[in-house]
Amino acid sequence: MNAVSAASSKPSTPSATAAPKSAGLEGIIAGQTAVGAVTQGQLLYRGYEIHDLAQNATFEEVAHVLLVGHKPSAAELGAFKAEIVAERALPELVIDTLRKTARLPNTVPMDTLRSAVSLLAHLDPDCQDVSPAANLRKSKRLLAKIATIIGHMQNVIDGRDLVKPDPSLDHAANLLWMMTGKKPTSEQARVLDVSLILYAEHDFNASTFTARTIAGTLSDLHGAVTGAIAALKGPLHGGANEMAMEMLKEIMKDVGEAGIGTAKVDQWMDKAFAEKRKLMGFGHRVYKNGDHRAPILHKLGRGIAEKDTGNPGGHPALAWFRLGEQVQKIMLDKKQIHPNVDFPCGLTYFTMGIPVPQYTPIFVASRITGWAAHVMEQHANNRLIRPIAEYVGRPQTKW
Amino acid sequence: MNAVSAASSKPSTPSATAAPKSAGLEGIIAGQTAVGAVTQGQLLYRGYEIHDLAQNATFEEVAHVLLVGHKPSAAELGAFKAEIVAERALPELVIDTLRKTARLPNTVPMDTLRSAVSLLAHLDPDCQDVSPAANLRKSKRLLAKIATIIGHMQNVIDGRDLVKPDPSLDHAANLLWMMTGKKPTSEQARVLDVSLILYAEHDFNASTFTARTIAGTLSDLHGAVTGAIAALKGPLHGGANEMAMEMLKEIMKDVGEAGIGTAKVDQWMDKAFAEKRKLMGFGHRVYKNGDHRAPILHKLGRGIAEKDTGNPGGHPALAWFRLGEQVQKIMLDKKQIHPNVDFPCGLTYFTMGIPVPQYTPIFVASRITGWAAHVMEQHANNRLIRPIAEYVGRPQTKW
Repeated sequence: MNAVSAASSKPSTPSATAAPKSAGLEGIIAGQTAVGAVTQGQLLYRGYEIHDLAQNATFEEVAHVLLVGHKPSAAELGAFKAEIVAERALPELVIDTLRKTARLPNTVPMDTLRSAVSLLAHLDPDCQDVSPAANLRKSKRLLAKIATIIGHMQNVIDGRDLVKPDPSLDHAANLLWMMTGKKPTSEQARVLDVSLILYAEHDFNASTFTARTIAGTLSDLHGAVTGAIAALKGPLHGGANEMAMEMLKEIMKDVGEAGIGTAKVDQWMDKAFAEKRKLMGFGHRVYKNGDHRAPILHKLGRGIAEKDTGNPGGHPALAWFRLGEQVQKIMLDKKQIHPNVDFPCGLTYFTMGIPVPQYTPIFVASRITGWAAHVMEQHANNRLIRPIAEYVGRPQTKW
Repeated sequence: MNAVSAASSKPSTPSATAAPKSAGLEGIIAGQTAVGAVTQGQLLYRGYEIHDLAQNATFEEVAHVLLVGHKPSAAELGAFKAEIVAERALPELVIDTLRKTARLPNTVPMDTLRSAVSLLAHLDPDCQDVSPAANLRKSKRLLAKIATIIGHMQNVIDGRDLVKPDPSLDHAANLLWMMTGKKPTSEQARVLDVSLILYAEHDFNASTFTARTIAGTLSDLHGAVTGAIAALKGPLHGGANEMAMEMLKEIMKDVGEAGIGTAKVDQWMDKAFAEKRKLMGFGHRVYKNGDHRAPILHKLGRGIAEKDTGNPGGHPALAWFRLGEQVQKIMLDKKQIHPNVDFPCGLTYFTMGIPVPQYTPIFVASRITGWAAHVMEQHANNRLIRPIAEYVGRPQTKW
């Protein structure tokens, strides 16, 4: 763009000169939240620490904590789960659009999911109501329906009949069932459940901050979630779990299964470093000493891989984990960069046979809880989110 | 939400304690831009001042300045306009969705527009390509097609056949033609053209900042624009032009045409102040001494109203302007708050017979240029937009 390179002077902006300034808002506090806390030391969801939740809670309990605000009693949990199950079916408008879009050559599942959620708005009786009660009802509907969108979309991609939701299955197990038409083992269901717990909330990450910025104009929940899906798609955000696995597939192809554990992997990585390739699934804007969530998921995913008799991508599941572990070690030794949760997530979902382009949509099936909680919080105590910019363009010029 | 009210302590966040902090990011510089400059003193688009553009440029010239980066030569302008005209037709998928959604009882045009733009992504051959060349091609297509979406949507709402784009008409005139099936006068076309010029760009406003936050994850242009539409919908942002007119309709109904210029309007406003009603179309996060764009549009809109022989909303167009002027004077006298551009915009579009729920979509038909320019700028020199949050929730609690 000509104007950028032609920039020569900066018209003064009195209020801006002294203003705090940060590209990408790194280190800037953009507001308060009671939903989640991301610090170097720990990750809390409404006060509950992530290791504790991964070990002792279910995704539905975590969803209740995030959306309703407190740990549910047994009766509250039962009622909450029943509400979610009752909301799983999709309107014909959305099913029809999935059929027309999911197999288009330039379409990826995150785009289809974004369009489907946008379309759900048209049929939601509470769409234009931003009251706390309406927002909570809409949040539960989106939590239920997003999983079905993912399942049905995969059925369309696979050219098979739609696999109806199974009311006897919980969120994670039902999602695997709908996507594959196979009942998952209890271990598979639990590993997906834990991955959903780990993905549910992360304070002002880019997609949640997008949702809050949209909600801050007093726009509605469906719009905020539609925008958040668009943000999560990016490879610097949720899209990283897909990109991380694509990179591992590329390394496996280049070095071969026999190359794992050898210097061939180091050579591959050295070449990538020399070419300044962006390696996805590593590093994090906030966590500098490692992502609390990564080791939890890595251990669980490896547990499945150790027992796995399948051959995902033409290699034993454990071989993928061994390769991933070598890549992680090289990144840490040579670049001092830790994996983030997207790295073990890619490996784990791959081991479970989930198609790679659905990894980020599955992230949405969880993060919808954090997004909705933040939108409700934003609406409850709203302030328009509107920063200022430093102008570095062409000086004033007569037309 | 229980957790918020139960909040009692704030776990320390070492990096956050000393961090710059601003609710709504007021006064925080979130990055650099060469696209537009918003200051108390002036509004520039790539160096060109807004009064100068409103007087001397056309919307297509402004669109070229914003998207391509420089003032077009006559040949460049001709080629640019031809490209836009050639891209106006909509794919059947989008037309079909307009037919199925635009008349649904809980749907407003901004929601239909958001879904339609999201669906355009599926058929755009450049959808997943975020290179500068692909982004520019997609920007032109969206500029062309958004106007057609608005026109066809209004045709569906009105229950009439779709009015095809007219290749002999420029962007503004064609938009009026498609919406109404009537060829606008040259004055009507020019007034809409100027309103589009005024709405095209405004640095890091909430919707543009949403688009940049989405693009900052390296997500794609269609996703960024879809999210921006969701943000613009809100009554604290683009939705204000509709809300401002709804308020004037309410005052007119309560005080009657004979009440204009009398104390009845003061009484209405005093009651609104006492009830702490949020009055839309007034005040601005950045402009404290008035919005540069408002007087430009007010004058042009009044010019049409002075000649108008119609009776919009059952009253002469000029009566609406006289009422609006009285309301503005009361706001300034009693609250020292100036109107922003949305106030005269509502009046002007109402005078021109445009249905109120289309005011914000028409804003989109213009702002798509600013959004796309910012997305291209973000992609060209990217940094993930990810602020931090101050945690004010429940202290750490064992599950």
